Amino acid sequence: MLQTRINQWLKRNREEGTMLLQKLVQARSTQGNEQLAQTIVIEALRDIGLKVDIWEPDGNELVKHPYFSSSRTKFNGSLNVVGILKGTGEGRSLILNGHIDVVPEGDLEQWEHDPYSGEVIDGKLFGRGATDMKGGNVSLLLALSALRALGIPLKGDVFFQSVIEEESGGAGTLAAILRGYKADAAIIPEPTNMKIFPKQQGSMWFRIHVKGRSAHGGTRYEGVSAIEKSLLVVEHIRELEKRRNERITDPLYSKIPIPIPINIGKINGGDWPSSVADYVSLEGRMGVSPDESLEEAKREMESWIAKLKELDSWFEQQPAILEWFGARWVPGAIELEHELIGKLINSYQDVIGESPIIEASPWGTDGGLLTKVGATPTIVFGPGVTEKAHFPNEYIEINKVFEAAEIIALTIVDWCENE
Amino acid sequence: MLQTRINQWLKRNREEGTMLLQKLVQARSTQGNEQLAQTIVIEALRDIGLKVDIWEPDGNELVKHPYFSSSRTKFNGSLNVVGILKGTGEGRSLILNGHIDVVPEGDLEQWEHDPYSGEVIDGKLFGRGATDMKGGNVSLLLALSALRALGIPLKGDVFFQSVIEEESGGAGTLAAILRGYKADAAIIPEPTNMKIFPKQQGSMWFRIHVKGRSAHGGTRYEGVSAIEKSLLVVEHIRELEKRRNERITDPLYSKIPIPIPINIGKINGGDWPSSVADYVSLEGRMGVSPDESLEEAKREMESWIAKLKELDSWFEQQPAILEWFGARWVPGAIELEHELIGKLINSYQDVIGESPIIEASPWGTDGGLLTKVGATPTIVFGPGVTEKAHFPNEYIEINKVFEAAEIIALTIVDWCENE
Repeated sequence: MLQTRINQWLKRNREEGTMLLQKLVQARSTQGNEQLAQTIVIEALRDIGLKVDIWEPDGNELVKHPYFSSSRTKFNGSLNVVGILKGTGEGRSLILNGHIDVVPEGDLEQWEHDPYSGEVIDGKLFGRGATDMKGGNVSLLLALSALRALGIPLKGDVFFQSVIEEESGGAGTLAAILRGYKADAAIIPEPTNMKIFPKQQGSMWFRIHVKGRSAHGGTRYEGVSAIEKSLLVVEHIRELEKRRNERITDPLYSKIPIPIPINIGKINGGDWPSSVADYVSLEGRMGVSPDESLEEAKREMESWIAKLKELDSWFEQQPAILEWFGARWVPGAIELEHELIGKLINSYQDVIGESPIIEASPWGTDGGLLTKVGATPTIVFGPGVTEKAHFPNEYIEINKVFEAAEIIALTIVDWCENE
Repeated sequence: MLQTRINQWLKRNREEGTMLLQKLVQARSTQGNEQLAQTIVIEALRDIGLKVDIWEPDGNELVKHPYFSSSRTKFNGSLNVVGILKGTGEGRSLILNGHIDVVPEGDLEQWEHDPYSGEVIDGKLFGRGATDMKGGNVSLLLALSALRALGIPLKGDVFFQSVIEEESGGAGTLAAILRGYKADAAIIPEPTNMKIFPKQQGSMWFRIHVKGRSAHGGTRYEGVSAIEKSLLVVEHIRELEKRRNERITDPLYSKIPIPIPINIGKINGGDWPSSVADYVSLEGRMGVSPDESLEEAKREMESWIAKLKELDSWFEQQPAILEWFGARWVPGAIELEHELIGKLINSYQDVIGESPIIEASPWGTDGGLLTKVGATPTIVFGPGVTEKAHFPNEYIEINKVFEAAEIIALTIVDWCENE
């Protein structure tokens, strides 16, 4: 039986797969530093026996695209890698997409170990990127490796993509799409805790400039505190978040406390303890529903911020200025009735013995670009620990990496049709 | 008649006095950059014919003093200047104290002209420091200049002090006291709008560290926003300010909206738009009543901040940490019956033709140190525009500089006794 063969192959290759993940975590692939990690991926693809396409995304071309978003426009030395498994023909094609970039490790004091040790403790492999998302990438590589090693032929083509720039807005996946990579469907093994996410939230970064009027702190009543005004702005945005989320009725979001959050992540203002602050900036991330466009969400925020003057006449004199900047992730969705979802659910049940949880993704992924720009319906499903992504002491459970590999291998066979 | 002679001398020297103020404003004397401005003062004192004492305050000595407060401990190149007018003996001595340091100009966009132009428009001289307090310093220099030029002898000694570091806590005046400068009374021409301030508010800087718990912005409900918690802290401090001010019954404060404000001047926190902020710092200035000690005020704030946990259990896990740092101004008061106040009121009436307003100062001055450490009772009275201190488009009315000079000259003669 196919599943048993795949399962046993994975068991035999458990140590090798774990070491591959460890090597990948040890290769600190923050933005601009992806070379070593991609070299390890390339070697793995060659070992599997795939044809490998390697290129440096062209910033000049990318910046012209309306969906381009990144904090940089040059990608020298930052390679995109695609491994191609050609089918025998007439089958459905599949993209397996994972990003190689990781967010910075942040405050080292909050890490119990070196964030790039790849240390294994009690079945967990620790390190920045273990969960988001090198663990998922290794699941993909293991799935392909098993299918090739076991000599299981496929009709449809499979494209394994190791892309840069997901964490800063998806320029790597956009570059792959512009290079011509499309397929009948895609799977992205972002850390979903093995849940199936047919919908992915989009998001955009914003900055709000709040003005005050300076005064000496001893006569603070003669000034207008931009800090106090910025508190009003924060509360006003909370109200917008409430309203936007009340509109979400999709049952996929029923267990999520705030389906499309608006996060205020940074606040900075004032320049002297004993002066009234005349300026505060707020920076945040607006979640965008899979059922709306980025443009609709922008317009709603813009008109909401303009309403501040109804709450406080100060904003008539000094309107809060809203600016969109930095990263942006397009929302994505695949039809719940899509055949790939049924096949993934079946494979999950075969391997795990119970039904998977199907929810909407609380964050954006490159699935938005694959769907909207690449016309490739995408499911997000992966082994990583959602709540450890972007956190200190990030880890992944090694068992899950292999379970996901088995589920994905079976799904590939089912989707791309075993001959 | 003495007053007429002084008045006429000031009229004759109006252009020269205005140019001196202009030169002083043009010399940008922010902390650490006082050299040029002090050089101009030294030249002016030499022109008047005073003995000049110039020295670099000794950081090693100052830091040992319990009343030392500054953001720096080295004063290389930052000179204190004292001009000494020796009396003929047996008269009461007087310190005339003004600071040469100015606060930074802040956001240039809010200035209509170059903040260091010293431009004169419609009788107003514009620029950072014009009001706080180079205008007052020029009033002092003009008063002394007139008395010397008119050959009016005095029994008591007069010490003109041009000190550094007032804006950061008074290390310049403390250094002058430690060098031995004391007197029977003092006048500081800070910008009081020509009001007489017998009491000066003290103040202290504080920093509050507010902790949160990080999370991805898309699942912000899994974290705890230090930004939202810091809003609670700001509101909590507003309540403390209210309570403290309700206790102030001194009639000198009756027209002041908030006699001893607590200003939150800086806020900084979070490091990524799409992460929940795990830390925010607030910096501010706590006003201290002339009727309480710095220590009493500190204790009240400390126990108030500790109450945050009663409002929100988060603060039980992660208490907001209060830290005292940076600048500190000792509150000061002179008896309302003090003879110098009577003499100043008389001089004011002689020059202006009406009674002065007597109020409490909304901010700390070096008068606290002069009184508490130097045992020199101090009045704050000067020509500057209170509400323009530390503001963009700071200016001073040139007329007031000369009126204050005339009032102070008459007061000097009266206090130090004309022979």
